[in-house]
Amino acid sequence: MTDMKLETVLKQLDQILAERKSASAEDSYVASLHQRGLNKILEKVGEEATETILAARDANDDSSKIDALVSETADLWFHTLVMLSNLGADSDAVLAELASRFDISGLEEKSNRSK
Amino acid sequence: MTDMKLETVLKQLDQILAERKSASAEDSYVASLHQRGLNKILEKVGEEATETILAARDANDDSSKIDALVSETADLWFHTLVMLSNLGADSDAVLAELASRFDISGLEEKSNRSK
Amino acid sequence: MTDMKLETVLKQLDQILAERKSASAEDSYVASLHQRGLNKILEKVGEEATETILAARDANDDSSKIDALVSETADLWFHTLVMLSNLGADSDAVLAELASRFDISGLEEKSNRSK
Amino acid sequence: MTDMKLETVLKQLDQILAERKSASAEDSYVASLHQRGLNKILEKVGEEATETILAARDANDDSSKIDALVSETADLWFHTLVMLSNLGADSDAVLAELASRFDISGLEEKSNRSK
Repeated sequence: MTDMKLETVLKQLDQILAERKSASAEDSYVASLHQRGLNKILEKVGEEATETILAARDANDDSSKIDALVSETADLWFHTLVMLSNLGADSDAVLAELASRFDISGLEEKSNRSK
Repeated sequence: MTDMKLETVLKQLDQILAERKSASAEDSYVASLHQRGLNKILEKVGEEATETILAARDANDDSSKIDALVSETADLWFHTLVMLSNLGADSDAVLAELASRFDISGLEEKSNRSK
Repeated sequence: MTDMKLETVLKQLDQILAERKSASAEDSYVASLHQRGLNKILEKVGEEATETILAARDANDDSSKIDALVSETADLWFHTLVMLSNLGADSDAVLAELASRFDISGLEEKSNRSK
Repeated sequence: MTDMKLETVLKQLDQILAERKSASAEDSYVASLHQRGLNKILEKVGEEATETILAARDANDDSSKIDALVSETADLWFHTLVMLSNLGADSDAVLAELASRFDISGLEEKSNRSK
């Protein structure tokens, strides 16, 4: 998978999450989370945060465990995206916030590219 | 800010984090986190996870607080990126993991774009 | 249940936890936690902390939910006791630490009682 | 400090927390927490839970760090007691809940003592 394609993953995931929000809870884990309500989604965010922290300690002790850390981080990001979807927001808002903090703009990007 | 630019935010942020990892701790918050060590970074991950959870409850009670939730989520993602950087990984790995789980491929992407 | 009896709950619980540490994992939840290892115990601590935080928000919104908060707090304390047991400590150490911070001593206690 | 005295620590701490709830925020950390509100108290619960989890990993790697784990656990319990105080409950309720789960009664206690 090239980097170009990776750049669109969050946007595609937002679309998938939006579709599944109204799917049958039997067919979709995401739908079942929404049906069980915001607290259940937030429990998962807390749970995955803890698992990420423990996986980071494991990866620090044994570098072969970095894949497990990446997997837990993906779980954590995923459940924060479900949380945002539940409340009417999406990954774009988070990326825009990160961009504004770090002064990452289209212009800067172009100038970086020309280096 | 157009979507096209947002797509590159995480990659640009990875670059910034890589540069700041070896900066002076006096000049850079990121450098100071690395200097204080992995536990300090993981404390921040846990702290931001809690603040995200509380902000989600606030946003559920009062939809005008959705921006504060987005801001806390950005804090959480940011500190997980610092954590990954500390251990030699980056956002690409997380995006690739999310893509593989949701069967998001370049092909699917192209077909989406042609719609 | 009188207060006098409540005072001994943690000590009795320490004893139960010590016995179950070496029990069969099939017969005892505590034994199964130890068998699955420290990370599993710590995952539960993180999970119960999140559930406690959410239950506190619920109880703040609706005072009839205070019992659910007490129950989640008991879950959290219980799993920290299992954690301490796993690493060779117990509730006495935590109570002694709290006593020393708040200048709670036998002397102070006696003087309180004579009031 | 004898065990008998330790048994009363939580009850004494409840009394201290009740007094400080209405103290000046300048004079008392506990008063300042209540003044800043429930979310601030819950942020501390989440923060101390994370620090406890990290301290447990540290103590597992190096048994001389068990005191630091006990100290973090005391911080965690302390902030859950402030949380309960904020919402009108106290340690007795948690101890009663733990007692009922583990079938710890005054009778059982007496029979234990007679052994």
